[in-house]
Amino acid sequence: MNTNDTICALATPQGGALGVIRISGSEAISIAERIFKPRGATPLAERKGQSVVFGDVYDTRGNMLDEVLLTLMRGPHSYTGEDTVEISCHASPYVIQQLMLNIIDKGARQAGPGEYTMRAFLNGKMDLSRAEAVADLIASGNEASHRLAMSQLKGGFSRELNALREKLLKLTTLMELELDFGEEDVTFADRSELTALCDEIERVITALVDSFSVGNAVRNGVPIAIVGETNTGKSTLLNALLREERALVSNISGTTRDTVEGMMTIGGVAFRFIDTAGIRETMDVVEQMGIERAFDQLQKASVALWVIDPRTDLSTMEESASRLLPLCSGKRLAVLVNKCDIVDAIRISDTMKWAESMIAKHGKGVQWGSRDMWAISAKLGVNMDKLEDFLVDAAAIPSMDADSVIVTNVRHYEALRKALTNIQNVRRGLNDGIPGDLVSLDLRACIRHLAEIVGSLSSEDVLINVFKNFCIGK
Amino acid sequence: MNTNDTICALATPQGGALGVIRISGSEAISIAERIFKPRGATPLAERKGQSVVFGDVYDTRGNMLDEVLLTLMRGPHSYTGEDTVEISCHASPYVIQQLMLNIIDKGARQAGPGEYTMRAFLNGKMDLSRAEAVADLIASGNEASHRLAMSQLKGGFSRELNALREKLLKLTTLMELELDFGEEDVTFADRSELTALCDEIERVITALVDSFSVGNAVRNGVPIAIVGETNTGKSTLLNALLREERALVSNISGTTRDTVEGMMTIGGVAFRFIDTAGIRETMDVVEQMGIERAFDQLQKASVALWVIDPRTDLSTMEESASRLLPLCSGKRLAVLVNKCDIVDAIRISDTMKWAESMIAKHGKGVQWGSRDMWAISAKLGVNMDKLEDFLVDAAAIPSMDADSVIVTNVRHYEALRKALTNIQNVRRGLNDGIPGDLVSLDLRACIRHLAEIVGSLSSEDVLINVFKNFCIGK
Repeated sequence: MNTNDTICALATPQGGALGVIRISGSEAISIAERIFKPRGATPLAERKGQSVVFGDVYDTRGNMLDEVLLTLMRGPHSYTGEDTVEISCHASPYVIQQLMLNIIDKGARQAGPGEYTMRAFLNGKMDLSRAEAVADLIASGNEASHRLAMSQLKGGFSRELNALREKLLKLTTLMELELDFGEEDVTFADRSELTALCDEIERVITALVDSFSVGNAVRNGVPIAIVGETNTGKSTLLNALLREERALVSNISGTTRDTVEGMMTIGGVAFRFIDTAGIRETMDVVEQMGIERAFDQLQKASVALWVIDPRTDLSTMEESASRLLPLCSGKRLAVLVNKCDIVDAIRISDTMKWAESMIAKHGKGVQWGSRDMWAISAKLGVNMDKLEDFLVDAAAIPSMDADSVIVTNVRHYEALRKALTNIQNVRRGLNDGIPGDLVSLDLRACIRHLAEIVGSLSSEDVLINVFKNFCIGK
Repeated sequence: MNTNDTICALATPQGGALGVIRISGSEAISIAERIFKPRGATPLAERKGQSVVFGDVYDTRGNMLDEVLLTLMRGPHSYTGEDTVEISCHASPYVIQQLMLNIIDKGARQAGPGEYTMRAFLNGKMDLSRAEAVADLIASGNEASHRLAMSQLKGGFSRELNALREKLLKLTTLMELELDFGEEDVTFADRSELTALCDEIERVITALVDSFSVGNAVRNGVPIAIVGETNTGKSTLLNALLREERALVSNISGTTRDTVEGMMTIGGVAFRFIDTAGIRETMDVVEQMGIERAFDQLQKASVALWVIDPRTDLSTMEESASRLLPLCSGKRLAVLVNKCDIVDAIRISDTMKWAESMIAKHGKGVQWGSRDMWAISAKLGVNMDKLEDFLVDAAAIPSMDADSVIVTNVRHYEALRKALTNIQNVRRGLNDGIPGDLVSLDLRACIRHLAEIVGSLSSEDVLINVFKNFCIGK
């Protein structure tokens, strides 16, 4: 991991009207001088601070390649903190290829993924959690994930961690005091103050750990299961929901796609729909394995939409309802009596009464109230607005207008979980009267795990791991 | 075609690390002030000339979207000649979408294809042929097409047209002189000077018209036909050639692809291979239509590669050779005796003698010399270097080190052809003693057609046509 040389990369994809090439490092300006001639009089080397220069770039043989706009930023007032040159050229594959070849010929090295942001981190322009927020920001496709990334980029999480760190250092100081005074009378009073501080730290870390489920839902979509017998209109419902936001539909790379039917954004929140088609067929097989698979699918969801076809003979449906509803225990449930465009009101009303009785009978632990039931027509889009309001409400994504800190990163989550175990050990140690010098081992480990998040303690392996998923040019 | 409002566009494709949004027009800076807050103290409106400013951008509701680098360029010192703002933001789909929405909300309009370059033309920053070169430059994928676009962008063609225009104006002046002096003695002397000037103009326009075949070959690839019986190794040869330059292989949109097998760049020149597989089968059908189709395919090529399998019984091949070779009349031909890795030297030598005798017997008008024949192995790549040298030589793309003017644009070609007809009419009129005022109609038409190329005379229709093929953001 060489961090002293000068790196270059195309920061935009091939295509479009413009291509932007970035050069960063101690040689950035001297390399730029050898591939670029300004149209104006002032040489690059004599320009101070930040400036924009119009001029021509050349290939290795000295042939003019393009007319470009060059932006010069002297370190430390640049993204990486180093001298940086950005060349905005025409997006011709030939121009970009030849220009990159010439920049490399003059001594720059093609940057690896995230290497600009890694340098920004190494040069103290941002801590590691803020650097990670840059990748999250680029990947953000909806309002909620954008807000989380932005909040992290602005340093909200870092400030929370710094506050924690100060509390932990205070705890350390108090414990050292106790060690100094040994077995004297002060011990008991100190321990109670230590325990109180310890509880406070544990509460903050627990809140952060708990926020990960929300953060994960925001990043990867709130999982919603569409359940019900076959041919009740589950696919039509999914299509009706997706049609609204087709432009924003996207797949998440790295998630298991076999059970995911589609993503959509409603009210700024991403939803991820899970197909549980075949619940009934699975039931028919009766095998434990089949039930477990359906259960696994449902388990991923925090919300279930139960789609019922009111034309079905209700007496035949009790068996599947009796198997389905217990699986929804602990989840928010919406009952959707579909096909209201072709079924009369009495039949719909009977179906609703039946569904309510089924929930009363089999739905122990299901989070449902009679207001969470609508006659819909997935085909014609009737009452879809009410369903969408329900989804946004059920997603329970806390308002992020305030700079609420929500953990979205698995690396942070794991470090916080370790820190939580450490602080719990500390508290247990204090309660059990374990000697301070032993307790302080866990205390130091707790501080270390939190430091890993912001990168003040980080090995090369951690850095390589963090930046490998960035795009090249960032 | 509103050209007074302020336009905006994303100038980079979705993806990558950076997105660049351009705003151009009289309101560009005031719109930028309402969506962007600089981190520094100086407001945008107070900044002079060109400057780079770090700051934050906001969505329509005032939520911070991203930290960006904003480049401000005051007209006329910008690409369009208008006040221009370029915002370089993180390439997040959400950030770009919301930022564009806010810019539009504050009064800008989403730009159409090529609208920035059209404004540059309308504001006198470049003539029409240079504006068209911008699109060619962006599309250029190899050295030759890049050189042509660059030469046109730098104004070589425009200068040639200006020189022509001056000669035409001189011709006009001389003819008006003749008109003034009516039937006096000066007439004869004037007419010979007029004719000489006319010849000179015709020569220059003819050279430009003729250069189009080269220009077209450079832009779209030099067409090369691979001919021969089936199973002689034509596909293997094509793959062997393409393998060398696979990274630069591309398809040309808008060209008929059904007969095109692949593109490749050798020695900076693009080649386009035309599959004539099935020449023999077509021959077997004997129908005139079948022969015409093969003939059509061959006609597109200026060079033919005749691939022969030396293992074939030569006596059975004369019929197809006798049909194939006349079709190669007027073309450069290379004879490739393939499979030299598995066939002995005597057999190869016999095949070469046979091919030479066939060309002598059936190849009237074929441009071939005995040096244009090699034993090759398409499979192992034997002698492919010699074939490539032959191709570059046969392509006959003139060296473009000098600022040679080559016409590449169909619109220019058509205008030049019309101008050529006009000047030929002028000369015929002069020779036939047609009155000067009638001849001058054609002279004016000639000047007008040349003016259309640089756009000093251009209708809205022409402009819409020219810019519709540009990408958005350029």
